[in-house]
Amino acid sequence: MTAVELIEKKRHGLGLTSNEIRWLISAYTDGTVTDYQMAAMLMAIFIHGLNHEELAVWTDAMLHSGEVLDFSDVDAPVLDKHSTGGVGDKVSIPLAPMVAACGVAIPMMSGRGLGHTGGTLDKLESIPGFTTALDPERFNQILRSTGLVLAGQSETLVPADRKLYALRDSTGTVPSIPLISSSIMSKKLAEDLDGLVLDVKVGKGAFMRDLDSARQLAETMVGIGAAHDTKVAALLTAMDQPLGDEVGNASEIRESIDVLRGEGPADVTEITMALGVEMLLLGGITGDEQSARNLLAKTVETGSALALFERVIVEQGGNPEVLTNPALLPIAPLRFEVKARQAGIVSECDALSIGVAAMRLGAGRERKEDTIDPGVGITVHAKIGDRVEVDQPLATLAYATEDRLQSALPLLDAAWIIGEAGAPGPLIIDRIGP
Amino acid sequence: MTAVELIEKKRHGLGLTSNEIRWLISAYTDGTVTDYQMAAMLMAIFIHGLNHEELAVWTDAMLHSGEVLDFSDVDAPVLDKHSTGGVGDKVSIPLAPMVAACGVAIPMMSGRGLGHTGGTLDKLESIPGFTTALDPERFNQILRSTGLVLAGQSETLVPADRKLYALRDSTGTVPSIPLISSSIMSKKLAEDLDGLVLDVKVGKGAFMRDLDSARQLAETMVGIGAAHDTKVAALLTAMDQPLGDEVGNASEIRESIDVLRGEGPADVTEITMALGVEMLLLGGITGDEQSARNLLAKTVETGSALALFERVIVEQGGNPEVLTNPALLPIAPLRFEVKARQAGIVSECDALSIGVAAMRLGAGRERKEDTIDPGVGITVHAKIGDRVEVDQPLATLAYATEDRLQSALPLLDAAWIIGEAGAPGPLIIDRIGP
Repeated sequence: MTAVELIEKKRHGLGLTSNEIRWLISAYTDGTVTDYQMAAMLMAIFIHGLNHEELAVWTDAMLHSGEVLDFSDVDAPVLDKHSTGGVGDKVSIPLAPMVAACGVAIPMMSGRGLGHTGGTLDKLESIPGFTTALDPERFNQILRSTGLVLAGQSETLVPADRKLYALRDSTGTVPSIPLISSSIMSKKLAEDLDGLVLDVKVGKGAFMRDLDSARQLAETMVGIGAAHDTKVAALLTAMDQPLGDEVGNASEIRESIDVLRGEGPADVTEITMALGVEMLLLGGITGDEQSARNLLAKTVETGSALALFERVIVEQGGNPEVLTNPALLPIAPLRFEVKARQAGIVSECDALSIGVAAMRLGAGRERKEDTIDPGVGITVHAKIGDRVEVDQPLATLAYATEDRLQSALPLLDAAWIIGEAGAPGPLIIDRIGP
Repeated sequence: MTAVELIEKKRHGLGLTSNEIRWLISAYTDGTVTDYQMAAMLMAIFIHGLNHEELAVWTDAMLHSGEVLDFSDVDAPVLDKHSTGGVGDKVSIPLAPMVAACGVAIPMMSGRGLGHTGGTLDKLESIPGFTTALDPERFNQILRSTGLVLAGQSETLVPADRKLYALRDSTGTVPSIPLISSSIMSKKLAEDLDGLVLDVKVGKGAFMRDLDSARQLAETMVGIGAAHDTKVAALLTAMDQPLGDEVGNASEIRESIDVLRGEGPADVTEITMALGVEMLLLGGITGDEQSARNLLAKTVETGSALALFERVIVEQGGNPEVLTNPALLPIAPLRFEVKARQAGIVSECDALSIGVAAMRLGAGRERKEDTIDPGVGITVHAKIGDRVEVDQPLATLAYATEDRLQSALPLLDAAWIIGEAGAPGPLIIDRIGP
């Protein structure tokens, strides 16, 4: 078998056999197949696709390119959640303790922010002392003692994905549904999960801008799960405007704590509850939606979710006092208000512009090597459907330097559209799964 | 402009602008664009193609990636010939002196054999002392003093093609008509030609196996020539069985000398004459086919072509006595006859099998780094349409070692098909050009 033979097959749109795909991924991981050969293959896959069987094997070969976790000794159902990324999407942070408090084990492995979307790791690390870099032993200890651990992807998991992702990024082969879905699913399936809930964002601030693509991505990932005998459910949720009121890092931790106290914004709470219900159903904690909803609500009412989050913060080296004294979270020194130039109803509140503006303030990374400032961010005061008067603040920017502010402001000029009417669409657009 | 932006355009099947193509080729030549980025681009081009305008610019950008020759001081029309490669195709060797003897300047730059097809340089170098590695000064001297020079491609010409060809070879992107035609035409157009004649081989022993692809390649190359204001004519010629009787290196020189003496095989002579006519017409030496044919025939009758070839051999360091004493050319020590197992008419004489068998004897290269043995080869005694009796020799192999012979013989088992009937198709299938 040679790389050229396999490239030639895929170039003609032919299917690759299971052995061919396993050889290719393994030979690419160990360097036998070169970057330029894999680049040609990725472009052929980008254009011709991978069929259902190819994709299942491709994902399985990727997930076996490195270490695979083993939670067979954990009594509780082992679940995780993944979001395709949005602006103000802090849902993992309240969701994980709420679901874990219902008896689900969650070995959550998250990513960092890139571009206009934030990352759960960056947000968690704004808690003073909190570390997401855990060695495997410590990761296992925390999971087994608390039922929840919030960490970064282990370096030993799915090395093929790290190589492939970097290559895709520099060869124009990122937005391919088989390549995206195998990248996400190989990392999640390497966690030895009983089930996985996906939040596939759709809209202006999401990776998938149109519903058809988002649905296709969700269906593809659910199909990969089925081929791997892992239960996967996906929600398609709206990402036209930021989720919640806060876009930043420390500020999103504050808003997450609000949700855990039952005082969070309606949209964040709604998506957290909906994903939590899916997780409890997948985990077999309960068999019907209403009782799942009640169980989750009880973790907020009784404070059990907040208590669990507190334990995890302590275990991961963070200062738990942030839960009662949010002023301990970093906050930038300066403020700027973006004001409405006219009165009317907000018809658009553009997640992408606001996400990029937050990135420019320092809340996110333009390039992987950029560092972030946990204290900067944007607090959104007016969302779609809200009535505003002239000069009423649309958002408050927390910023650290004047040049950062000046680079962010132009993006906010047209982020809000104010007119005669406006109403948000449904937040949860569809559900795909078993 | 970034490589990723251009890859993304072509990935979607969109056209690249002239500036984009020129930047890409230049940035790839100097290493700014990486091999893996170009590999992704080549696969996108392989699948989506390049339109007429893109291809003209792509070729022009390639030809300007290095030195471009200048023959503006040469009074004679400057022409070259290129063949897409076949088995036993020694036509360049008698053709060049015949056409040059009619007053055309031919700065012929040829290639080496790879796989089952031979290369003009390898054949010429079987003449003791003959060198095809000429520095530019010597190349120009010989061309200007004799009107003909037979050399390898200069290292300074079209460096983009050397990089691109190696990359295509290892990324499954070789058989793409725009990529093949731009590779050939950039090298030829960098020779500052007034005109170019192409011999596009079609059939079992050719790169293009079917007439449609061969025609498309020929039309594409003629189109590139037109866009570059260079007259290009192409003949589509049959390559189902070997051309002539000799497949080897020194043996093809012997057969070429036969053609120059008017004693060559009919098929080699026919193609040599046909391509020669095209060159004299393109060069404006004469305006009609019959007088072109007469002029060429006269170079054989008067010995002027052979005399010119003798001068070139001397200028390029070779021993001109090979022309009168072919025994001075190398020849392998051992002989093996492949015999007919049954009586009948030869209906197939497979150029590919015979070409690969000759390569295995040592006449060609499996890999670029292989060395060739100039004295080995296959003399074909029975071709399509010939009647043979049982045990009559179909071919004689000249070989040097038993293991080489044993590796070649299995390929010849089914190379000849003998049955009730058989007749060769037309040798010259079509003409494409002005």
